[in-house]
Amino acid sequence: MSISVPQTPAEKKFYDELVAHKLLIPCDVPGVFGRGGVFEDVVDRLMMLISKHGGGDGAEIQRYPPLLSRNTFVQSGYLKSFPQMIGVVHSFVGKDPEHKKLLERVDQGETWSDDFPHADLVLTPAACYPVYPQAKGTLEAKGKLVDIMSYCMRHEPSGDPARMQMFRQREYVRVGTPEQIDEFRETWAKRSMTIMVEQLQLAAHRDVANDPFFGRGGKMLAMNQRDAALKHEILIPICSTEKPTACVSINYHQEHFGHLFEIRQPNGEYAHTSCIGFGLERTTLALLHTHGLAPAEWPKSVREHLGL
Amino acid sequence: MSISVPQTPAEKKFYDELVAHKLLIPCDVPGVFGRGGVFEDVVDRLMMLISKHGGGDGAEIQRYPPLLSRNTFVQSGYLKSFPQMIGVVHSFVGKDPEHKKLLERVDQGETWSDDFPHADLVLTPAACYPVYPQAKGTLEAKGKLVDIMSYCMRHEPSGDPARMQMFRQREYVRVGTPEQIDEFRETWAKRSMTIMVEQLQLAAHRDVANDPFFGRGGKMLAMNQRDAALKHEILIPICSTEKPTACVSINYHQEHFGHLFEIRQPNGEYAHTSCIGFGLERTTLALLHTHGLAPAEWPKSVREHLGL
Repeated sequence: MSISVPQTPAEKKFYDELVAHKLLIPCDVPGVFGRGGVFEDVVDRLMMLISKHGGGDGAEIQRYPPLLSRNTFVQSGYLKSFPQMIGVVHSFVGKDPEHKKLLERVDQGETWSDDFPHADLVLTPAACYPVYPQAKGTLEAKGKLVDIMSYCMRHEPSGDPARMQMFRQREYVRVGTPEQIDEFRETWAKRSMTIMVEQLQLAAHRDVANDPFFGRGGKMLAMNQRDAALKHEILIPICSTEKPTACVSINYHQEHFGHLFEIRQPNGEYAHTSCIGFGLERTTLALLHTHGLAPAEWPKSVREHLGL
Repeated sequence: MSISVPQTPAEKKFYDELVAHKLLIPCDVPGVFGRGGVFEDVVDRLMMLISKHGGGDGAEIQRYPPLLSRNTFVQSGYLKSFPQMIGVVHSFVGKDPEHKKLLERVDQGETWSDDFPHADLVLTPAACYPVYPQAKGTLEAKGKLVDIMSYCMRHEPSGDPARMQMFRQREYVRVGTPEQIDEFRETWAKRSMTIMVEQLQLAAHRDVANDPFFGRGGKMLAMNQRDAALKHEILIPICSTEKPTACVSINYHQEHFGHLFEIRQPNGEYAHTSCIGFGLERTTLALLHTHGLAPAEWPKSVREHLGL
């Protein structure tokens, strides 16, 4: 199967290598890939390496399927900022006659799900979103620290193998006072560079970044986010040196989610939140691009840190 | 958060216990649950136990995100048999004016995704579906054996904690000659009972079963499936002894997928396919219901088989 979207020569070369080595398995839609056993083994080991750094902090492990209720999704504000990325779930409701009509439309090559009502579900756009409604109320003094891993949906079909429509983020999410957030961000800024540069020997650098806010109003939001240095990314060259790929993202949401989901600090003010997200597929792709397609031949110290 | 669907007293009791122990984390939509660390640890160990049985057979590991293209989905025939279960992905397309209208509809509590076009994606209904399009063509003599684990979508909101809208199936999928399929089914019929009865000490029994085919025509399909004993399930009491829960399913599809996806035996006839699927959440729930909510206190030999 081939994908039908434009690819740069570098994207095509890497993509073809990944597919030839059964690291990625292309499906018949751009940005949706299966992964082979060697790829998944690296992902598992990345998960363990991240846990080695974060596992001593007493985080609560939560694992969600990639579905949010429409209610939580609307409440999160995602629809305001990133409508272009979302995936809403619609389902068939009907009896035999409606089913018969449905199959006729399919047979005739017509669009067949236009009249399906919504199923009260939206695909999770970022791994941390299910955490906030759970944190509703007033926090204890120590706040909350949650360990998350989830598939995320971003509807952006692409020829870049590092830009998938569904991918996994491993995150730590901090909910608490501004001071607690500062400490969390500093700790993980250091840890994440230790992991990427020292341990995995990737040509990573950290930079201030912005989210892809939608539309004309979005430009202002992106500028404000940059000015306040609310988002940092760890960027690593994969298919381009000029435009390296964001493999890690450290986000400070200030009171955004505290306000939307009614989470309060012990002093009654809205809680602040922050998260660090490791892109598991992207980091694995960065490793494969940097050190070669056979993990068995990666540098000895990289292999040791991954327990390979 | 509470769920708004009917529950039997047994379902409510077990559900409340699971939530109180942070094994399941309810979200604000029925049948969508987060899982806590203790629950996920059991899932990981179940995965390893299943691998111990199947890992020596040389299966190719493939891991897919829970998305199929509409094309593959239609080709699979799922829409004909189980339209009531599906989840189709629709996405926003538009510029600032359309976005403004969208947000107005949301603000006014109107349904807001009716006019979203489809995104060429359908949520995967069964873990083995992405395998068949990959197997297109003529098989080598040894056929194919694939090791799969995937989230699956079934749109059936329920009060039974063992009936989730999105859950994980670990599967082995066999593609080959009828003789190869026979051997696969016999091997896994034995192995799966060894795992469930001997090793995990669950009150499991195996029975002929049928899929929930849709509509009036579906009754006939279900009867035919039963008559030919194409589907077996391993059933374990969770919230009901009279209606035990299907935790494992062994399916023989005959030439169904070989025909639909143009997979051929070396002799030119359509390939036969079979799969065994372990419901990872359901088996974990069966363990928690049978042996108690604290895995640390489960019987010694069960703990040993799980490496706990």
